[in-house]
Amino acid sequence: MELVMPISAKENLKKNMKAFSEKSKRFPGLLWRTVWRVGRDDPRRVVHALKVGLSLTLVSLLYLLEPLFKGIGQNAIWAVMTVVVVLEFTAGATLCKGLNRGLGTLLAGSLAFLTGYIAEKTGLVFRAVFIGAAVFVIGTATTYMRFFPYIKRNYDYGVLIFLLTFNLITVSSYRVSNVLKIAHERFYTIAIGCGVCLVMTLFIFPIWSGEDLHNSTVIKLEGLAKSIEACVNEYFNDVEKEKTQDKSPEDPIYKGYKAVLDSKSQDETLALHASWEPRHSRHCRYPWQQYVKLGAVLRHFGYTVVALHGCLQSEIQTPQHCRVLFKDPCIRVTNELSKALMELANSIRNRRHCSPEILSDNLHEALQDLNNALKSQPRLFLGSNNNQATNMLAVAAAHANSSQKREKYNGVSLPSFKTDNSALLEWKSKRMNNEHSRSEAAERKVLRPQLSKIAITSLEFSEALPFAAFASLLVETVARLDNIIEEVEELGRIACFKEFKPGDEVIVNFKTQKVNVTLNHFSSQGGE
Amino acid sequence: MELVMPISAKENLKKNMKAFSEKSKRFPGLLWRTVWRVGRDDPRRVVHALKVGLSLTLVSLLYLLEPLFKGIGQNAIWAVMTVVVVLEFTAGATLCKGLNRGLGTLLAGSLAFLTGYIAEKTGLVFRAVFIGAAVFVIGTATTYMRFFPYIKRNYDYGVLIFLLTFNLITVSSYRVSNVLKIAHERFYTIAIGCGVCLVMTLFIFPIWSGEDLHNSTVIKLEGLAKSIEACVNEYFNDVEKEKTQDKSPEDPIYKGYKAVLDSKSQDETLALHASWEPRHSRHCRYPWQQYVKLGAVLRHFGYTVVALHGCLQSEIQTPQHCRVLFKDPCIRVTNELSKALMELANSIRNRRHCSPEILSDNLHEALQDLNNALKSQPRLFLGSNNNQATNMLAVAAAHANSSQKREKYNGVSLPSFKTDNSALLEWKSKRMNNEHSRSEAAERKVLRPQLSKIAITSLEFSEALPFAAFASLLVETVARLDNIIEEVEELGRIACFKEFKPGDEVIVNFKTQKVNVTLNHFSSQGGE
Repeated sequence: MELVMPISAKENLKKNMKAFSEKSKRFPGLLWRTVWRVGRDDPRRVVHALKVGLSLTLVSLLYLLEPLFKGIGQNAIWAVMTVVVVLEFTAGATLCKGLNRGLGTLLAGSLAFLTGYIAEKTGLVFRAVFIGAAVFVIGTATTYMRFFPYIKRNYDYGVLIFLLTFNLITVSSYRVSNVLKIAHERFYTIAIGCGVCLVMTLFIFPIWSGEDLHNSTVIKLEGLAKSIEACVNEYFNDVEKEKTQDKSPEDPIYKGYKAVLDSKSQDETLALHASWEPRHSRHCRYPWQQYVKLGAVLRHFGYTVVALHGCLQSEIQTPQHCRVLFKDPCIRVTNELSKALMELANSIRNRRHCSPEILSDNLHEALQDLNNALKSQPRLFLGSNNNQATNMLAVAAAHANSSQKREKYNGVSLPSFKTDNSALLEWKSKRMNNEHSRSEAAERKVLRPQLSKIAITSLEFSEALPFAAFASLLVETVARLDNIIEEVEELGRIACFKEFKPGDEVIVNFKTQKVNVTLNHFSSQGGE
Repeated sequence: MELVMPISAKENLKKNMKAFSEKSKRFPGLLWRTVWRVGRDDPRRVVHALKVGLSLTLVSLLYLLEPLFKGIGQNAIWAVMTVVVVLEFTAGATLCKGLNRGLGTLLAGSLAFLTGYIAEKTGLVFRAVFIGAAVFVIGTATTYMRFFPYIKRNYDYGVLIFLLTFNLITVSSYRVSNVLKIAHERFYTIAIGCGVCLVMTLFIFPIWSGEDLHNSTVIKLEGLAKSIEACVNEYFNDVEKEKTQDKSPEDPIYKGYKAVLDSKSQDETLALHASWEPRHSRHCRYPWQQYVKLGAVLRHFGYTVVALHGCLQSEIQTPQHCRVLFKDPCIRVTNELSKALMELANSIRNRRHCSPEILSDNLHEALQDLNNALKSQPRLFLGSNNNQATNMLAVAAAHANSSQKREKYNGVSLPSFKTDNSALLEWKSKRMNNEHSRSEAAERKVLRPQLSKIAITSLEFSEALPFAAFASLLVETVARLDNIIEEVEELGRIACFKEFKPGDEVIVNFKTQKVNVTLNHFSSQGGE
């Protein structure tokens, strides 16, 4: 297929048609898989779809049933419109939209009637000019107001509806005299539509934004715990594997922190909707703002995990036999860290204060061990002036060279990374030659990006440097854990979490934790 | 005011009224400042507001002018509605919404007429049942479809409009016989509304999403350059200052990378809208997808900068007199880095290929210098077993203690960070005492979060560790720069950037660069 052959247009068309028919044969399967996956990921979606269908059928009855139609007339359409536009996935979103819509309509109606009242007493021409001017001024001012950060965040939809309604009423009041009567009739049908939406959203399988925010926070904590554990394990386990592995979505490290990094807008939307939802308990307001704060701290923790992950993909690497010296203390610190994160996740999930044991002596002892290990190997932190280190480097270089050769014998042509300065000199002379042939943009493109890789690997940095960075970042994550604990404690205080009972502690131990992870993973997909 | 006194309700009311009147006196000033700031940040907002006002006035004329009204009738309202709903800030957003709306309406209309045709031949009761069932099935299926990721990303609004229109037509066709005529009449007014929107958005001071995407990319690159420079300068300049400084929005480091970190959703929205905009040139498609890719790479670079920033705020710090040894090479590497980023930003801004000099010998030489500096101080990388290092630590500890004492004498009570194990022991004994008085949740809260801080500072980690992390992260950023260069080159290739001319190079040198930064900063606020 790769060969270029003179194919007649007819054959080409035939091939295209065949490809198309192949595709359309596969389409039903693909569609079915998508339908299935979307529903499986979050079964509440099916519930929501059925709720919308049911609501629409209910308001259509206003129109379809003879006795109801006589009372309401043409205006039943407005109930249908209200349901389509207002009924959203979560209760908070529906309330937010519905109230925005109601407020916008009310304000617009009042202002429109005021405008109409002023215009009424004048002549027809002046009235037209007055209405035109009002439309222009209100249109401009309202649109400009939508750029105010506070309004945009909270009332954007309401302002849009205000503008829409104001224009509709003002303009139609010019020709129609009984606007008030029309508005009155419409009001009833819109109220019916809103009522159907409210009943559907609040009483029939309600879906709460607050719950989503709560669950997503738990999932993010667990994701970070899993990510940091996977990251450290990979650092000490297998140096060959990581080189080929890219930042694929299947990478457990990336999967763990991915959800945290870009969570800002999602968190804020959920919190905004949650703020419209009715209170869950009598003596505690729902602490949606605290979840947003906790989300920010988690994101910050996530950035450190990304940096830690970066250590795995870095150009200069501490050889595996040096890393092994610190494997046990590092893994211990990581286990304690991830245990603490898991306990925090569990405490939020079960709405109870977290165990006073999370920052127990274990974490401190693990840090102390790491410290001791670092102190016991002072030679590692010498530069390459030192004999042993130079030897290590030599070993590492030899290893790298031999593995490169192996790769070449396997027929794979890799860009040649040389660990000495000759590569750089070679590159420089190449560039000198190319300097005058400016048109070879493609070649320049291929060459340039590798320069700094060559430059970095050609340097004889102390090979302990990358490990020091890794260890330092690990210690940094422990420090960041503090901020998370602080915010979770604050959340527990505001949201009146249950007191911690010593019996709950069992969840933290290793066996039960693993079971919880799997359970969560399931609910994680449900929570999106 | 802080004292609690028995104040009568009258006085209380008086005070409240006074506060309210104070507030309302300040309100006009506050409002005016907001209005002014929103307009100054991006003058195009004023233009957009005026465009909306003008468009609304134009379509209102359909209703207000006698001759036009006779031809069009009540349906002029639909033109107003179309303008309010479809006219968006950028051309891409308007086109996206308008075409979605058009497509949705067309499909819904066809399906509704098909339904009506089938239902027409049957009795009135069966017809009502049939319409009710159709509303339910289509409502459920359409709502479910909105959860498909592909549909949600591209056609969410269109599907909503489809649902709305389908219901309106199907339901009203039950009682009204001349639906086709009504639809026909409305079609004209909607077309007029769309026409006004198109003219306003494409020909009168058009605002392009693509331009915004382009500018925001330039600004992000410059922000990163400034951020990394400020970060390294702060690391070497003033160790006292950074301790008090929080992650405030005025912090130049934070300000530089803030825009990059949470740019994902904004980038994607802009790219989606840009994809609907007409092509800018004949032989190149607009590479909006490449901008999104570049944005992802920039975010990844940003995470490393965050980690670098974290080094400034870390609990364990390398003493300043050790850092000074590496100041010059580090600053040199940083300057080269930020120069390269600035050149990339300039190349994108001027839509030309970037100078072949960006990854010049300078960056390599700077790295080599840093390497030499690290090698020339092998003792620094010894653990605290080593004499000199212990001395350094002792000096640092003494320094920290004395500065703490100074603070205390000034009357400021700081939480006592002790650099030895005694602090930890003290804490432990305190916790033992508190263990049984579980109700003192508040005290527990204050105590616990500081434990790991104490634990970390009480460890005698090699003080070179944090500096090693800093240096390693700096080298890491150089490696990440490669990815950025690669994506920018790719962007240049796809978007047919101009060839680089040697004369353009002058921009990179230092003096001109500074001027550019200020200019940009202005346009940066305009680009939001």
